[in-house]
Amino acid sequence: MGLSQAVKAIKANGLTVTGLCRGGFFSAKDWKDDNLRAIEEAHTLGAPALILVVGGMPDGSRDLAGARQKIRDSIFEILPFARKAGIPLAIEPLHPMQVARAAVNTLEQALDMCDALGEGVGVAVDVYHVWWDPKLKGQIERAGKRVLGYHICDWLPATSDFFNDRGMMGDGIIDLPLIGSWVEAAGYKGFQEVEIFSERDWWQRDPDEVLEICKQRT
Amino acid sequence: MGLSQAVKAIKANGLTVTGLCRGGFFSAKDWKDDNLRAIEEAHTLGAPALILVVGGMPDGSRDLAGARQKIRDSIFEILPFARKAGIPLAIEPLHPMQVARAAVNTLEQALDMCDALGEGVGVAVDVYHVWWDPKLKGQIERAGKRVLGYHICDWLPATSDFFNDRGMMGDGIIDLPLIGSWVEAAGYKGFQEVEIFSERDWWQRDPDEVLEICKQRT
Repeated sequence: MGLSQAVKAIKANGLTVTGLCRGGFFSAKDWKDDNLRAIEEAHTLGAPALILVVGGMPDGSRDLAGARQKIRDSIFEILPFARKAGIPLAIEPLHPMQVARAAVNTLEQALDMCDALGEGVGVAVDVYHVWWDPKLKGQIERAGKRVLGYHICDWLPATSDFFNDRGMMGDGIIDLPLIGSWVEAAGYKGFQEVEIFSERDWWQRDPDEVLEICKQRT
Repeated sequence: MGLSQAVKAIKANGLTVTGLCRGGFFSAKDWKDDNLRAIEEAHTLGAPALILVVGGMPDGSRDLAGARQKIRDSIFEILPFARKAGIPLAIEPLHPMQVARAAVNTLEQALDMCDALGEGVGVAVDVYHVWWDPKLKGQIERAGKRVLGYHICDWLPATSDFFNDRGMMGDGIIDLPLIGSWVEAAGYKGFQEVEIFSERDWWQRDPDEVLEICKQRT
Protein backbone atom coordinates (compact mmCIF):
# COMPACT_ATOMS: atom_id res chain seq x y z
CA MET A 1 0.00 0.00 0.00
CA GLY A 2 3.01 2.31 0.17
CA LEU A 3 4.39 4.24 3.09
CA SER A 4 1.97 7.17 3.47
CA GLN A 5 -1.06 4.91 3.08
CA ALA A 6 0.41 2.58 5.70
CA VAL A 7 0.95 5.42 8.14
CA LYS A 8 -2.71 6.46 7.73
CA ALA A 9 -4.01 2.89 8.14
CA ILE A 10 -1.94 2.37 11.28
CA LYS A 11 -3.23 5.57 12.83
CA ALA A 12 -6.83 4.96 11.77
CA ASN A 13 -6.80 1.54 13.43
CA GLY A 14 -5.10 2.59 16.66
CA LEU A 15 -2.14 0.28 16.08
CA THR A 16 1.36 0.61 17.56
CA VAL A 17 4.42 0.02 15.42
CA THR A 18 6.74 -2.18 17.52
CA GLY A 19 9.71 -1.96 15.19
CA LEU A 20 10.54 -1.91 11.51
CA CYS A 21 11.96 -5.16 10.20
CA ARG A 22 14.22 -4.99 8.40
CA GLY A 23 17.39 -3.08 7.63
CA GLY A 24 20.71 -4.80 7.22
CA PHE A 25 21.72 -7.30 4.53
CA PHE A 26 25.04 -5.55 4.26
CA SER A 27 26.33 -8.15 1.82
CA ALA A 28 23.85 -6.92 -0.82
CA LYS A 29 25.04 -4.60 -3.57
CA ASP A 30 22.64 -1.73 -2.79
CA TRP A 31 22.93 -2.07 0.99
CA LYS A 32 23.55 1.61 1.72
CA ASP A 33 20.58 3.06 -0.21
CA ASP A 34 18.43 0.27 1.15
CA ASN A 35 19.35 1.06 4.75
CA LEU A 36 19.04 4.82 4.44
CA ARG A 37 15.55 4.31 3.01
CA ALA A 38 14.68 1.95 5.88
CA ILE A 39 15.81 4.56 8.43
CA GLU A 40 13.56 7.13 6.79
CA GLU A 41 10.63 4.73 6.72
CA ALA A 42 11.13 3.80 10.36
CA HIS A 43 11.08 7.48 11.21
CA THR A 44 7.90 8.11 9.21
CA LEU A 45 6.18 5.06 10.74
CA GLY A 46 7.13 6.12 14.27
CA ALA A 47 8.95 2.82 14.83
CA PRO A 48 10.97 2.69 18.06
CA ALA A 49 13.81 0.84 16.32
CA LEU A 50 15.04 -0.50 13.02
CA ILE A 51 15.85 -4.21 13.23
CA LEU A 52 19.02 -5.21 11.38
CA VAL A 53 19.21 -8.65 9.81
CA VAL A 54 22.85 -8.23 9.05
CA GLY A 55 23.54 -10.45 6.06
CA GLY A 56 26.22 -13.05 5.67
CA MET A 57 28.86 -14.36 3.34
CA PRO A 58 28.69 -13.47 -0.35
CA ASP A 59 28.20 -16.44 -2.69
CA GLY A 60 31.35 -18.51 -3.01
CA SER A 61 33.08 -16.78 -0.09
CA ARG A 62 34.74 -18.61 2.79
CA ASP A 63 35.75 -15.40 4.54
CA LEU A 64 33.55 -15.33 7.63
CA ALA A 65 35.74 -12.88 9.53
CA GLY A 66 35.64 -10.54 6.52
CA ALA A 67 31.84 -10.74 6.40
CA ARG A 68 31.72 -9.75 10.05
CA GLN A 69 34.09 -6.85 9.52
CA LYS A 70 31.93 -5.65 6.63
CA ILE A 71 28.85 -5.70 8.89
CA ARG A 72 30.58 -3.60 11.55
CA ASP A 73 31.89 -1.12 8.98
CA SER A 74 28.50 -0.81 7.29
CA ILE A 75 26.63 -0.10 10.53
CA PHE A 76 29.29 2.49 11.34
CA GLU A 77 28.55 4.14 8.01
CA ILE A 78 24.75 4.35 8.40
CA LEU A 79 24.78 5.16 12.11
CA PRO A 80 25.06 8.97 11.74
CA PHE A 81 21.89 8.94 9.60
CA ALA A 82 20.05 6.79 12.14
CA ARG A 83 21.08 9.04 15.01
CA LYS A 84 19.95 12.10 13.11
CA ALA A 85 16.57 10.48 12.43
CA GLY A 86 16.28 9.41 16.08
CA ILE A 87 16.00 5.74 15.07
CA PRO A 88 17.97 3.26 17.20
CA LEU A 89 19.46 0.37 15.23
CA ALA A 90 18.84 -3.11 16.68
CA ILE A 91 21.33 -5.79 15.68
CA GLU A 92 19.54 -9.14 15.74
CA PRO A 93 21.82 -12.12 16.30
CA LEU A 94 20.58 -15.01 14.18
CA HIS A 95 20.96 -18.69 14.94
CA PRO A 96 24.41 -20.14 14.16
CA MET A 97 22.79 -22.52 11.67
CA GLN A 98 21.97 -19.39 9.60
CA VAL A 99 25.51 -17.99 9.68
CA ALA A 100 25.92 -17.98 5.90
CA ARG A 101 22.89 -15.66 5.71
CA ALA A 102 23.48 -13.60 8.86
CA ALA A 103 26.94 -13.58 10.39
CA VAL A 104 26.12 -12.13 13.81
CA ASN A 105 25.23 -15.23 15.78
CA THR A 106 25.41 -14.58 19.51
CA LEU A 107 24.26 -11.82 21.77
CA GLU A 108 27.82 -11.43 23.03
CA GLN A 109 29.08 -10.82 19.51
CA ALA A 110 26.28 -8.30 18.86
CA LEU A 111 27.04 -6.44 22.09
CA ASP A 112 30.75 -6.36 21.31
CA MET A 113 29.75 -4.57 18.12
CA CYS A 114 27.46 -2.22 20.04
CA ASP A 115 30.30 -1.38 22.42
CA ALA A 116 32.55 -0.56 19.49
CA LEU A 117 29.90 1.51 17.69
CA GLY A 118 28.61 3.55 20.62
CA GLU A 119 25.37 5.47 21.06
CA GLY A 120 22.34 4.54 18.96
CA VAL A 121 22.89 0.79 18.52
CA GLY A 122 21.34 -2.02 20.52
CA VAL A 123 20.08 -5.56 20.04
CA ALA A 124 16.91 -7.47 19.25
CA VAL A 125 16.58 -10.65 21.29
CA ASP A 126 14.72 -13.45 19.51
CA VAL A 127 14.42 -16.58 21.63
CA TYR A 128 14.49 -18.85 18.57
CA HIS A 129 18.00 -17.64 17.76
CA VAL A 130 19.55 -17.36 21.21
CA TRP A 131 17.80 -19.74 23.63
CA TRP A 132 20.56 -22.38 23.35
CA ASP A 133 23.33 -19.96 24.40
CA PRO A 134 25.04 -20.88 27.70
CA LYS A 135 25.91 -17.20 28.17
CA LEU A 136 22.41 -15.88 27.47
CA LYS A 137 21.47 -14.73 30.96
CA GLY A 138 24.70 -12.79 31.47
CA GLN A 139 24.58 -11.19 28.05
CA ILE A 140 20.97 -10.03 28.51
CA GLU A 141 22.09 -8.42 31.78
CA ARG A 142 24.98 -6.84 29.95
CA ALA A 143 22.67 -5.52 27.25
CA GLY A 144 20.44 -3.74 29.78
CA LYS A 145 18.57 -0.86 28.15
CA ARG A 146 20.10 -1.77 24.83
CA VAL A 147 17.47 -4.52 24.39
CA LEU A 148 15.36 -2.84 21.71
CA GLY A 149 13.11 -5.73 20.78
CA TYR A 150 12.04 -9.08 22.19
CA HIS A 151 10.73 -11.75 19.81
CA ILE A 152 9.07 -14.93 20.99
CA CYS A 153 8.07 -18.29 19.54
CA ASP A 154 9.18 -21.79 20.50
CA TRP A 155 11.74 -24.40 19.43
CA LEU A 156 10.20 -27.67 18.33
CA PRO A 157 12.39 -30.59 19.39
CA ALA A 158 11.63 -32.33 16.08
CA THR A 159 12.11 -29.22 13.97
CA SER A 160 12.55 -30.05 10.30
CA ASP A 161 13.59 -26.83 8.57
CA PHE A 162 16.36 -24.29 8.97
CA PHE A 163 14.01 -21.29 8.69
CA ASN A 164 10.29 -21.89 8.60
CA ASP A 165 9.42 -24.46 11.24
CA ARG A 166 9.09 -22.45 14.45
CA GLY A 167 6.63 -23.42 17.13
CA MET A 168 3.84 -21.61 18.97
CA MET A 169 4.78 -20.60 22.49
CA GLY A 170 4.25 -23.61 24.75
CA ASP A 171 4.58 -26.24 22.03
CA GLY A 172 8.35 -26.51 22.26
CA ILE A 173 11.18 -26.68 24.76
CA ILE A 174 12.19 -23.06 25.37
CA ASP A 175 11.69 -21.89 28.94
CA LEU A 176 9.97 -18.66 27.90
CA PRO A 177 9.01 -17.43 31.39
CA LEU A 178 12.66 -17.73 32.44
CA ILE A 179 14.11 -15.86 29.46
CA GLY A 180 11.29 -13.32 29.69
CA SER A 181 12.21 -12.66 33.32
CA TRP A 182 15.81 -11.93 32.30
CA VAL A 183 14.67 -9.51 29.59
CA GLU A 184 12.36 -7.77 32.03
CA ALA A 185 15.09 -7.57 34.67
CA ALA A 186 17.34 -5.92 32.08
CA GLY A 187 14.84 -3.05 31.96
CA TYR A 188 12.98 -3.85 28.75
CA LYS A 189 9.48 -2.41 28.79
CA GLY A 190 8.46 -2.91 25.15
CA PHE A 191 6.18 -5.45 23.51
CA GLN A 192 6.73 -9.17 23.19
CA GLU A 193 6.61 -9.68 19.43
CA VAL A 194 5.29 -13.05 18.32
CA GLU A 195 7.26 -14.21 15.28
CA ILE A 196 6.42 -17.73 14.13
CA PHE A 197 7.76 -18.65 10.71
CA SER A 198 5.82 -21.86 10.13
CA GLU A 199 5.37 -23.21 6.63
CA ARG A 200 3.75 -26.48 7.65
CA ASP A 201 1.47 -25.36 10.46
CA TRP A 202 0.66 -21.81 11.55
CA TRP A 203 0.87 -20.21 8.11
CA GLN A 204 -1.75 -22.72 6.96
CA ARG A 205 -4.31 -21.71 9.57
CA ASP A 206 -6.90 -18.98 9.78
CA PRO A 207 -5.14 -15.82 11.04
CA ASP A 208 -7.89 -15.11 13.58
CA GLU A 209 -7.39 -18.55 15.11
CA VAL A 210 -3.63 -17.99 15.23
CA LEU A 211 -4.06 -14.64 17.00
CA GLU A 212 -6.48 -16.15 19.50
CA ILE A 213 -3.99 -18.91 20.38
CA CYS A 214 -1.12 -16.37 20.63
CA LYS A 215 -3.15 -14.43 23.20
CA GLN A 216 -3.92 -17.55 25.21
CA ARG A 217 -0.27 -18.57 25.27
CA THR A 218 1.28 -15.32 26.44
CA MET B 1 32.55 -58.56 15.60
CA GLY B 2 33.01 -57.90 19.29
CA LEU B 3 35.85 -56.22 21.10
CA SER B 4 38.62 -58.86 21.12
CA GLN B 5 38.03 -59.69 17.46
CA ALA B 6 38.17 -55.98 16.65
CA VAL B 7 41.47 -55.56 18.47
CA LYS B 8 42.93 -58.44 16.47
CA ALA B 9 41.64 -57.12 13.14
CA ILE B 10 43.02 -53.66 13.84
CA LYS B 11 46.46 -55.06 14.68
CA ALA B 12 46.50 -57.48 11.76
CA ASN B 13 45.76 -54.67 9.31
CA GLY B 14 48.21 -52.15 10.73
CA LEU B 15 45.48 -49.63 11.59
CA THR B 16 45.61 -46.85 14.17
CA VAL B 17 42.67 -46.14 16.44
CA THR B 18 42.23 -42.38 16.43
CA GLY B 19 39.61 -42.26 19.16
CA LEU B 20 36.61 -44.16 20.43
CA CYS B 21 33.30 -42.53 19.64
CA ARG B 22 31.30 -42.43 21.71
CA GLY B 23 30.80 -42.11 25.46
CA GLY B 24 28.42 -39.58 26.92
CA PHE B 25 24.62 -39.46 26.48
CA PHE B 26 24.34 -38.62 30.17
CA SER B 27 20.60 -38.11 29.86
CA ALA B 28 20.13 -41.85 29.22
CA LYS B 29 19.05 -44.11 32.06
CA ASP B 30 22.05 -46.47 31.95
CA TRP B 31 24.60 -43.71 31.33
CA LYS B 32 27.05 -44.76 34.02
CA ASP B 33 27.41 -48.43 33.05
CA ASP B 34 27.53 -47.38 29.44
CA ASN B 35 30.38 -44.93 30.02
CA LEU B 36 32.41 -47.22 32.26
CA ARG B 37 32.18 -49.89 29.55
CA ALA B 38 33.25 -47.34 26.92
CA ILE B 39 36.29 -46.39 29.01
CA GLU B 40 37.28 -50.07 29.26
CA GLU B 41 36.79 -50.54 25.53
CA ALA B 42 38.84 -47.45 24.70
CA HIS B 43 41.62 -48.83 26.89
CA THR B 44 41.52 -52.25 25.23
CA LEU B 45 41.47 -50.71 21.75
CA GLY B 46 44.41 -48.45 22.56
CA ALA B 47 42.35 -45.37 21.72
CA PRO B 48 44.04 -42.07 22.62
CA ALA B 49 40.73 -40.60 23.85
CA LEU B 50 37.08 -41.33 24.46
CA ILE B 51 34.84 -38.83 22.65
CA LEU B 52 31.85 -37.67 24.69
CA VAL B 53 28.63 -36.82 22.88
CA VAL B 54 27.13 -35.43 26.01
CA GLY B 55 23.37 -35.82 25.61
CA GLY B 56 20.73 -33.20 26.01
CA MET B 57 17.36 -32.51 27.53
CA PRO B 58 15.15 -35.41 28.58
CA ASP B 59 11.84 -35.68 26.70
CA GLY B 60 9.40 -33.00 27.77
CA SER B 61 12.01 -31.02 29.72
CA ARG B 62 12.58 -27.30 29.33
CA ASP B 63 15.42 -27.24 31.86
CA LEU B 64 18.48 -26.56 29.73
CA ALA B 65 20.62 -25.34 32.65
CA GLY B 66 19.73 -28.50 34.54
CA ALA B 67 20.76 -30.68 31.60
CA ARG B 68 24.10 -28.91 31.54
CA GLN B 69 24.62 -29.37 35.25
CA LYS B 70 23.83 -33.06 34.87
CA ILE B 71 26.50 -33.37 32.16
CA ARG B 72 29.13 -31.75 34.37
CA ASP B 73 28.21 -33.91 37.36
CA SER B 74 28.22 -37.09 35.29
CA ILE B 75 31.67 -36.45 33.81
CA PHE B 76 32.90 -35.73 37.34
CA GLU B 77 31.60 -39.14 38.37
CA ILE B 78 33.24 -41.17 35.60
CA LEU B 79 36.48 -39.18 35.54
CA PRO B 80 38.30 -41.21 38.23
CA PHE B 81 37.71 -44.39 36.20
CA ALA B 82 38.97 -42.71 33.03
CA ARG B 83 42.09 -41.43 34.76
CA LYS B 84 42.81 -44.86 36.19
CA ALA B 85 42.45 -46.41 32.72
CA GLY B 86 44.68 -43.71 31.22
CA ILE B 87 41.91 -42.64 28.83
CA PRO B 88 41.42 -38.88 28.37
CA LEU B 89 37.81 -37.81 27.95
CA ALA B 90 37.11 -35.47 25.04
CA ILE B 91 34.01 -33.30 25.33
CA GLU B 92 32.71 -32.58 21.85
CA PRO B 93 30.66 -29.37 21.56
CA LEU B 94 27.83 -29.99 19.14
CA HIS B 95 26.16 -27.39 16.94
CA PRO B 96 23.60 -25.17 18.73
CA MET B 97 20.91 -26.48 16.40
CA GLN B 98 21.42 -29.87 18.11
CA VAL B 99 21.14 -28.51 21.66
CA ALA B 100 18.17 -30.70 22.57
CA ARG B 101 20.33 -33.74 21.82
CA ALA B 102 23.68 -32.44 23.07
CA ALA B 103 23.73 -29.48 25.44
CA VAL B 104 27.40 -28.50 25.18
CA ASN B 105 27.39 -26.16 22.22
CA THR B 106 30.49 -24.00 22.15
CA LEU B 107 34.16 -24.63 22.68
CA GLU B 108 34.17 -21.98 25.40
CA GLN B 109 31.46 -23.82 27.32
CA ALA B 110 33.32 -27.13 26.93
CA LEU B 111 36.57 -25.57 28.16
CA ASP B 112 34.83 -23.98 31.14
CA MET B 113 33.78 -27.52 32.05
CA CYS B 114 37.32 -28.81 31.50
CA ASP B 115 38.67 -26.09 33.80
CA ALA B 116 36.21 -27.08 36.50
CA LEU B 117 36.90 -30.81 36.12
CA GLY B 118 40.70 -30.72 35.97
CA GLU B 119 43.17 -33.30 34.71
CA GLY B 120 42.04 -35.91 32.19
CA VAL B 121 39.40 -33.95 30.26
CA GLY B 122 39.79 -32.12 26.96
CA VAL B 123 37.81 -31.35 23.83
CA ALA B 124 37.16 -32.69 20.36
CA VAL B 125 36.96 -29.95 17.74
CA ASP B 126 34.61 -30.73 14.86
CA VAL B 127 34.52 -27.97 12.28
CA TYR B 128 30.89 -28.72 11.40
CA HIS B 129 29.84 -27.84 14.93
CA VAL B 130 32.09 -24.87 15.70
CA TRP B 131 33.10 -23.12 12.48
CA TRP B 132 30.48 -20.36 12.89
CA ASP B 133 31.76 -19.32 16.35
CA PRO B 134 33.16 -15.75 16.52
CA LYS B 135 35.35 -16.85 19.45
CA LEU B 136 36.72 -19.97 17.76
CA LYS B 137 40.30 -18.87 17.24
CA GLY B 138 40.74 -17.67 20.82
CA GLN B 139 39.13 -20.76 22.30
CA ILE B 140 41.31 -23.14 20.26
CA GLU B 141 44.34 -21.22 21.59
CA ARG B 142 42.93 -21.53 25.10
CA ALA B 143 42.42 -25.27 24.63
CA GLY B 144 46.05 -25.82 23.68
CA LYS B 145 47.09 -29.41 24.39
CA ARG B 146 43.58 -30.21 25.48
CA VAL B 147 42.53 -30.59 21.84
CA LEU B 148 42.16 -34.37 21.77
CA GLY B 149 40.55 -34.80 18.37
CA TYR B 150 40.03 -32.80 15.19
CA HIS B 151 37.14 -33.71 12.89
CA ILE B 152 36.72 -32.28 9.43
CA CYS B 153 34.05 -32.07 6.76
CA ASP B 154 32.39 -29.02 5.19
CA TRP B 155 29.26 -26.89 5.63
CA LEU B 156 27.06 -26.83 2.54
CA PRO B 157 25.44 -23.39 2.14
CA ALA B 158 22.22 -25.06 1.00
CA THR B 159 22.27 -27.72 3.70
CA SER B 160 18.90 -29.40 4.10
CA ASP B 161 19.10 -31.56 7.22
CA PHE B 162 19.98 -31.00 10.87
CA PHE B 163 22.25 -34.06 11.06
CA ASN B 164 23.05 -35.96 7.90
CA ASP B 165 23.84 -33.46 5.19
CA ARG B 166 27.49 -32.60 5.69
CA GLY B 167 29.76 -31.82 2.80
CA MET B 168 33.09 -33.17 1.55
CA MET B 169 36.00 -30.88 2.34
CA GLY B 170 36.16 -28.21 -0.35
CA ASP B 171 32.49 -28.44 -1.35
CA GLY B 172 31.28 -25.96 1.27
CA ILE B 173 32.14 -22.64 2.87
CA ILE B 174 34.33 -23.52 5.86
CA ASP B 175 37.85 -22.13 5.64
CA LEU B 176 39.49 -25.43 6.58
CA PRO B 177 43.14 -24.38 6.08
CA LEU B 178 42.56 -21.45 8.46
CA ILE B 179 40.92 -23.47 11.24
CA GLY B 180 43.46 -26.26 10.70
CA SER B 181 46.27 -23.75 11.21
CA TRP B 182 44.76 -22.70 14.57
CA VAL B 183 44.48 -26.32 15.69
CA GLU B 184 48.06 -26.99 14.66
CA ALA B 185 49.28 -23.83 16.42
CA ALA B 186 47.54 -25.04 19.58
CA GLY B 187 49.91 -28.01 19.57
CA TYR B 188 47.65 -30.72 18.18
CA LYS B 189 49.64 -33.44 16.47
CA GLY B 190 46.96 -36.10 15.97
CA PHE B 191 45.03 -37.18 12.90
CA GLN B 192 42.45 -35.16 11.00
CA GLU B 193 39.39 -37.37 11.20
CA VAL B 194 37.04 -37.12 8.24
CA GLU B 195 33.45 -37.35 9.46
CA ILE B 196 30.84 -36.76 6.77
CA PHE B 197 27.30 -37.70 7.74
CA SER B 198 25.66 -37.56 4.33
CA GLU B 199 22.42 -39.39 3.70
CA ARG B 200 21.84 -37.98 0.22
CA ASP B 201 25.33 -38.06 -1.25
CA TRP B 202 28.44 -39.63 0.26
CA TRP B 203 26.73 -42.54 1.99
CA GLN B 204 25.26 -43.52 -1.39
CA ARG B 205 28.67 -43.81 -3.09
CA ASP B 206 31.23 -46.56 -3.34
CA PRO B 207 33.41 -46.36 -0.18
CA ASP B 208 36.61 -46.68 -2.20
CA GLU B 209 35.63 -43.66 -4.29
CA VAL B 210 34.83 -41.69 -1.11
CA LEU B 211 38.21 -42.52 0.42
CA GLU B 212 40.01 -41.55 -2.77
CA ILE B 213 38.29 -38.14 -2.82
CA CYS B 214 38.99 -37.64 0.90
CA LYS B 215 42.67 -38.15 0.23
CA GLN B 216 42.66 -35.71 -2.69
CA ARG B 217 40.92 -33.07 -0.60
CA THR B 218 43.18 -33.09 2.48
